[in-house]
Amino acid sequence: MTSMKKLTFSAAATLPRGFQATGLAAGLKQNGAPDMALFYSEPPATLAGVFTTNQVKAATVRLDAERVAKVGVARGIVVNSGQANACTGKQGLRDARAMAAHAAKQFDVPANQFLVCSTGRIGVPLRMDIILPGIEKLAKAVSPQGGEQAARGILTTDTRPKRFTTTFTVNGQVCRLTGIAKGAGMIQPNMATMLAFLLTDARVERGALQQSLRAAVAQSFNRITVDGDQSTNDTALLLANGSAGHSLLKPGHPDWAAWVAALEGVTFRLAMEMVRDGEGAQKLVTVRVQGARSAADAEAAARSVANSLLVKTSWVGSYPNWGRIMDALGYSSAKVNENKVEIHYNHLLAVKNGLKAGASLERLAKIAARKEFTITIDLHMGRQAATVYSCDCTEEYVRINM
Amino acid sequence: MTSMKKLTFSAAATLPRGFQATGLAAGLKQNGAPDMALFYSEPPATLAGVFTTNQVKAATVRLDAERVAKVGVARGIVVNSGQANACTGKQGLRDARAMAAHAAKQFDVPANQFLVCSTGRIGVPLRMDIILPGIEKLAKAVSPQGGEQAARGILTTDTRPKRFTTTFTVNGQVCRLTGIAKGAGMIQPNMATMLAFLLTDARVERGALQQSLRAAVAQSFNRITVDGDQSTNDTALLLANGSAGHSLLKPGHPDWAAWVAALEGVTFRLAMEMVRDGEGAQKLVTVRVQGARSAADAEAAARSVANSLLVKTSWVGSYPNWGRIMDALGYSSAKVNENKVEIHYNHLLAVKNGLKAGASLERLAKIAARKEFTITIDLHMGRQAATVYSCDCTEEYVRINM
Repeated sequence: MTSMKKLTFSAAATLPRGFQATGLAAGLKQNGAPDMALFYSEPPATLAGVFTTNQVKAATVRLDAERVAKVGVARGIVVNSGQANACTGKQGLRDARAMAAHAAKQFDVPANQFLVCSTGRIGVPLRMDIILPGIEKLAKAVSPQGGEQAARGILTTDTRPKRFTTTFTVNGQVCRLTGIAKGAGMIQPNMATMLAFLLTDARVERGALQQSLRAAVAQSFNRITVDGDQSTNDTALLLANGSAGHSLLKPGHPDWAAWVAALEGVTFRLAMEMVRDGEGAQKLVTVRVQGARSAADAEAAARSVANSLLVKTSWVGSYPNWGRIMDALGYSSAKVNENKVEIHYNHLLAVKNGLKAGASLERLAKIAARKEFTITIDLHMGRQAATVYSCDCTEEYVRINM
Repeated sequence: MTSMKKLTFSAAATLPRGFQATGLAAGLKQNGAPDMALFYSEPPATLAGVFTTNQVKAATVRLDAERVAKVGVARGIVVNSGQANACTGKQGLRDARAMAAHAAKQFDVPANQFLVCSTGRIGVPLRMDIILPGIEKLAKAVSPQGGEQAARGILTTDTRPKRFTTTFTVNGQVCRLTGIAKGAGMIQPNMATMLAFLLTDARVERGALQQSLRAAVAQSFNRITVDGDQSTNDTALLLANGSAGHSLLKPGHPDWAAWVAALEGVTFRLAMEMVRDGEGAQKLVTVRVQGARSAADAEAAARSVANSLLVKTSWVGSYPNWGRIMDALGYSSAKVNENKVEIHYNHLLAVKNGLKAGASLERLAKIAARKEFTITIDLHMGRQAATVYSCDCTEEYVRINM
């Protein structure tokens, strides 16, 4: 492996070579906010994707999953926000296909090489009378500078766009990776993610591309929760169009690690931004469980704490309510012995052997008042660990969703 | 079986013969609200109990469970609210034993025939300097008329006392059953309940008493959720002191059904009161899943919907957001085919074959605006059913718990 320089990540949607994009307000949202986006790759791009494991799936998820599995090549993605195209039956599938076909037609590329994503209200038929003209406008407006507009066009209750760009080197060639995502609510992805679009000019072998995406998602989008509700529309798509022209990346290539680091860096940062900008969220709280008997136990214990409504509301008031954490551990499916549990807030010990210990309430409360802090729970039952990133559940969350 | 007259249930804590009780403000709560209660039975009462299955258990749960299993006879129960005596280690167990012993001493009865319950903040050592004098005052103040005071002494964030009394006939003798409970938050009992005290002057065989309690709890306290958080302190105790003097009740007795109906009627009504008075709750929503492939699937699907934060917040705004119900069904562990799902709001069809159908949004919204309504979900996958009673998640819930 060649020496790898430390990557830097900028909060920008600077598109890699060969990509164009844009976003606009087509009229799906009553408030006039941007509600459509389009990504286009001049060269055919190798395609990878991961999707929600919810049994109730949006039409777009069904269509894209088929194209990832069977086509493997993409020229673009068309996205609408405001309507999820979920629970829309056969008409929903017809609409998703028509969206992709109409976008493909504008660029004179094969219809099955366009992907389509929707996000918004479930159970509402798509306003195709708005979407089809929107696609035509998008196709005329795409440009290599349009990443930022695209990042805005995919948002729903997000308060800000989420995008990161990094560069990495393959065979001495500088490559770029841009990630653009949306989050906000109905966030507890499972082997999938919310909408995330990852674009690179690197050349990556198709199987390796899919494998690297799956691994990066497992450590980023699949580790976050806003409200424990897994969506019907979670989708992450990765397009590698090879414009950089280097030798094909796959495991064993001297610069494979640089690609993995870039991809993991961008997806992790996007995931953290989703939690920070979770509906009504004021705090990003890292819940780490270690010393679990099994990996499944570590995961179950961390999710139980990270999703407990009483734990999440206690974070609002900055009260270090470790009793609620003990309670949530106790009812998780993980094997827990309350007399062994140890809890830290950042580096301050709060609980030892299941009892109050160490730092004063005042010192713990100062940590719990921060915008970001970590709760580390050692079960002392084994050697497995898991981390979940969560946020507080505020009155604003209720107002947004009522 | 003899003919059984329809039972009536009054919202009162009228104690059965042989029982005395009272409640008072001992000083555990800073706001001066009642925080202790005591129940006493003149004759030794046959004892039954069920407890939280949380692995993190209050000291009182450990002590009472041992006494239910090994002693089987009780003379009384002493209760404090404000402090849970959970996560308090060996000192907690010593304190629980000392509470029971001090109460027993006041009545000159064996120490192991007193039960003890605590509810309130986890992880705080009991203020025994307040509790022991409190017990002495309680013992002096108990009376056959003290049920109402006792019902108030056990409350925490509950806004009102929860108690029901009914009468039933055994061998022509009128017997009485009184149930007194508290709920509010950290409510999703599992094979157990929040604090509930059931007192009767009926004579019931010990094994049958335990069996009837377990069955009644399974259909009442175990079917409710406020926030999905299962407590460390859930306890239901049932004392049958036999003052009515009839022949011993057990399955096969001609009036066994009357006993079961009385017990199920009181526990179910107490459970519904817990949901109606859930922290911040404005609505009681019955979530019934039928047509599930297995009983476990029915249960999982109903709990997934009843605990979904997005479903619970949608109830606040009276919006019939069936898309969120579909989403929560889809990520439950139950086998779901979205094309088969049918959803009713009360008797109005909202979804058929997974798609919007039947009633208009306006008509559905009128139902969702009611204080109480039922969502019936037919998965059309099999023949099993389960019902869970839930409430909305309001801004007030967040304020109470932050």
